[in-house]
Amino acid sequence: MAPSEPNAIPFRAKGEIPQFKEEKEGWEGYIEWEKYPEKKKQVEALLKQYDFPDPPEFQMVPLPKTNPVLTGERWKQYHSAIGLDHIVDESWRVVQNEKSADMTHVLQFPYNGEAPGDRLIKTEITPNKDHFVRNHGGVPSISADAYTLDITGLVKNPTTLTLAQLQDETLFPRQTNTVTIQCSGTRRIEQIHSYPGDGDELINAPWGEGAISTARWTGVSLKKVIKHCGGLLSPADNLEFFGADTYFKKGQVYNYAVSVPWRKVQANEVLLAWEMNGEPLPRIHGYPLRVVVFGYIGARSVKWLYEVRAIKGPSEAPVQKKEYLYYTPQVGKQNALYSNGFSIQDMPVSSAIISPVTMDQVVHQGRVKVKGWAYSGGGHWPVRVEVSGDGGSIWYEVPYENMSTKYYYAWRLWEVDLPVDAEGWLELCVRTWDNAMNTQPTYVRSAWNWDLHVTSSAHRIKVYSINTSKPATAARMKQLEAAGLSIYPITRPLKIELESDEDYDREMAARGGRDPLE
Amino acid sequence: MAPSEPNAIPFRAKGEIPQFKEEKEGWEGYIEWEKYPEKKKQVEALLKQYDFPDPPEFQMVPLPKTNPVLTGERWKQYHSAIGLDHIVDESWRVVQNEKSADMTHVLQFPYNGEAPGDRLIKTEITPNKDHFVRNHGGVPSISADAYTLDITGLVKNPTTLTLAQLQDETLFPRQTNTVTIQCSGTRRIEQIHSYPGDGDELINAPWGEGAISTARWTGVSLKKVIKHCGGLLSPADNLEFFGADTYFKKGQVYNYAVSVPWRKVQANEVLLAWEMNGEPLPRIHGYPLRVVVFGYIGARSVKWLYEVRAIKGPSEAPVQKKEYLYYTPQVGKQNALYSNGFSIQDMPVSSAIISPVTMDQVVHQGRVKVKGWAYSGGGHWPVRVEVSGDGGSIWYEVPYENMSTKYYYAWRLWEVDLPVDAEGWLELCVRTWDNAMNTQPTYVRSAWNWDLHVTSSAHRIKVYSINTSKPATAARMKQLEAAGLSIYPITRPLKIELESDEDYDREMAARGGRDPLE
Repeated sequence: MAPSEPNAIPFRAKGEIPQFKEEKEGWEGYIEWEKYPEKKKQVEALLKQYDFPDPPEFQMVPLPKTNPVLTGERWKQYHSAIGLDHIVDESWRVVQNEKSADMTHVLQFPYNGEAPGDRLIKTEITPNKDHFVRNHGGVPSISADAYTLDITGLVKNPTTLTLAQLQDETLFPRQTNTVTIQCSGTRRIEQIHSYPGDGDELINAPWGEGAISTARWTGVSLKKVIKHCGGLLSPADNLEFFGADTYFKKGQVYNYAVSVPWRKVQANEVLLAWEMNGEPLPRIHGYPLRVVVFGYIGARSVKWLYEVRAIKGPSEAPVQKKEYLYYTPQVGKQNALYSNGFSIQDMPVSSAIISPVTMDQVVHQGRVKVKGWAYSGGGHWPVRVEVSGDGGSIWYEVPYENMSTKYYYAWRLWEVDLPVDAEGWLELCVRTWDNAMNTQPTYVRSAWNWDLHVTSSAHRIKVYSINTSKPATAARMKQLEAAGLSIYPITRPLKIELESDEDYDREMAARGGRDPLE
Repeated sequence: MAPSEPNAIPFRAKGEIPQFKEEKEGWEGYIEWEKYPEKKKQVEALLKQYDFPDPPEFQMVPLPKTNPVLTGERWKQYHSAIGLDHIVDESWRVVQNEKSADMTHVLQFPYNGEAPGDRLIKTEITPNKDHFVRNHGGVPSISADAYTLDITGLVKNPTTLTLAQLQDETLFPRQTNTVTIQCSGTRRIEQIHSYPGDGDELINAPWGEGAISTARWTGVSLKKVIKHCGGLLSPADNLEFFGADTYFKKGQVYNYAVSVPWRKVQANEVLLAWEMNGEPLPRIHGYPLRVVVFGYIGARSVKWLYEVRAIKGPSEAPVQKKEYLYYTPQVGKQNALYSNGFSIQDMPVSSAIISPVTMDQVVHQGRVKVKGWAYSGGGHWPVRVEVSGDGGSIWYEVPYENMSTKYYYAWRLWEVDLPVDAEGWLELCVRTWDNAMNTQPTYVRSAWNWDLHVTSSAHRIKVYSINTSKPATAARMKQLEAAGLSIYPITRPLKIELESDEDYDREMAARGGRDPLE
């Protein structure tokens, strides 16, 4: 499917592949690693026996025109090497059951997918089947009845709660919030197209503008749950989340784990959610229970949550400590450390033009309809959206009546009839201002970073403008119509003459010929 | 070879293909069209019977990674449709006989090719086998003994001259000039990469930086030949050149024809040449006689010259009137006319970085060797070359001792040790100033034009800088060496840890942790 990626190669296993059991009944596809250091060591030894192929090169060369764009052979092989092929296969079946058929599968496994642009911005609330998915491992199958959540670590009363208990409104007030979740990979393709970057073993998926979606999430504020456990014990200041998916980093295996500061939880901005748009969570989105962290990078909104642990300082787990780092442009393979990048938590202000799409050739009469989304994380919201038809010299404000509802934690959709007089290739761009008057960096180059995260610069597309309110263009369109020809694509040769000999001679005489008089 | 281009399709000829004869003995592959209007009409009728396939799309999608890059099926089929397949086959044989094996064949037929960059700038004078070729049709085979040149039109004494007469130094003084010839397609690939443009029926070949070369040409000044014919008659002010190659335009057939103003000839800047670097012209370069117009677009330097005609005004032939036009960026398929573009004659100041090449990842100790060429047409010459390591903010002058000889009509090669402190992706660029203080447009965008000619903006490449004079980078290089790993390519995942837990903890303590104190 993705020809640039190597096919699965047969493994040269030196020992028999152990069968890592699912530890908990009713939790299929969930291998518990964190409580079993000996199993982790066994995997480390096992993975050392294999020479996994290099991930496919897709940054130095054009992306494959396939769907899935990338298949994730290396990640599949990690699973295969430790006897977990069935998780890979099952995960793809879940995609086909739960997601729209026309998703762009930017990575087949672990599954990463985004909806086509026109549907992405059709509604303020994204339908579940169109909501983007950025998974880091396989999809487990967890029975709601068997489900339990452990609250551990530096809490006064470590507790295990069933889903029924969490949903018991006499114990916990229920809340519903409209929240946009955004992957820090959104619009990564623009950074890749500009400059190659991190070749991570978990491929940095080539996202377009669709790794962002909005849903109404229902659940309980984690603050109330911690309160229920008697509160934190000193010196706890962060909460670590563990998900049932399996993650790999430099030859070691983990359950997916990240953390958020207690301050964030205290602000009632961390929800333990079991409903998405009024329906039980789809399996691919974390059934039966997931975290939803408002205004943060999606990576903290852990799916298939099985444990919340109160700790001192951020999680030492690889996704928190060693991934989702934001570097200055002079940092890269030659000098990147874990400590010299920002740890991405709050997401900055950003926006994207979804229609038209780059390279479109647009016939219009002086105005082009431009549509898209605008978002700001960290509790900020988009106040003003500005669109430019000349690469960012003159900006037009989107009228407020063309912007969707304001929420503290969600995007706004917008559209504008942009005045476009000029013809030929134009650079259309958008920038958004949030309520703290933050706006977006000017160019991709202004904020390119080695790990290719957070592409938040003014979004720019190339559009070929054909303005039929111009007499010369109107004449050509008539000429094409008479000859039964199309203006599209512009790179197809014109079969007709551009100008009659008579017109040419008249025009040349008027211009005083090609050469000076004397 | 070029998978994006359709294979030759069988023709649905409704009539028998006529055998168009070579009119002159000793002139193989030369079909005379211009003196035979009835033959031209016959071809027009014949071509109408075919539905030629669209040329391949290579502007909206990535270029094929093949060599030939494009094969020119459509142009081959034009020849095939009128029974001239043998010219196509013979032309490719000539390429293989006369040109270096490692040329980049940007178009197989009509042949367009450029030498690899390292050889292109190895010597001030380009070896014949490495000199770029931009042909518009097939390569004829003309016997020097049978060769004649007709001087016709508005001259006092229309004359036919043999090669022996032209070479007779008692009739004509012989001269040798060092002249750079440049195709207006040089660096076209940068315009294509930025924005698609004209889909011409004679494919606009995707040239790199090598459609420019320099030779010492020997022959006779056309001024002397015209004088020999008694001079021009009023109102002649242009000289039209006819070549023996066959050209097509919108369903009609021609011999290749263009013109230059008499003023240009009077300045002794138009040579009729039979020698290239001390050897008889190679067949592919116009044997036995060609025009060399100093400082003009290469298209006026007609090969296989059989006639010079004195006329009033520029040539009405399609290459002069309807090709090599330079439009303003708002002109394109929707409104382009023949009369609203400049006719490209004099070439402007331009330059290119040949080493390093774009996307190179360069390990250095604070200085990067940068090399290239600089040229200005129209009788100007490059005086100053400036190179920037930061996209054009700070410019370094190339020391004059690092620039090759000054000529009135030739390029200068240059090299410089550019100070580079920064790491990561940098934009290196070059601009040249000529003796009239003309310099290059800033960006491709500044001078993009529909026909994709004359890409003369400051040449920019992307280079990933790895500066080992920086301690952090030196440490990483040591770490890689110890692990037996390479820094190349930068997109291959690092197998080693970026930082030990101990170093991370120390660093984080020094930074005061990830989060604020209170």
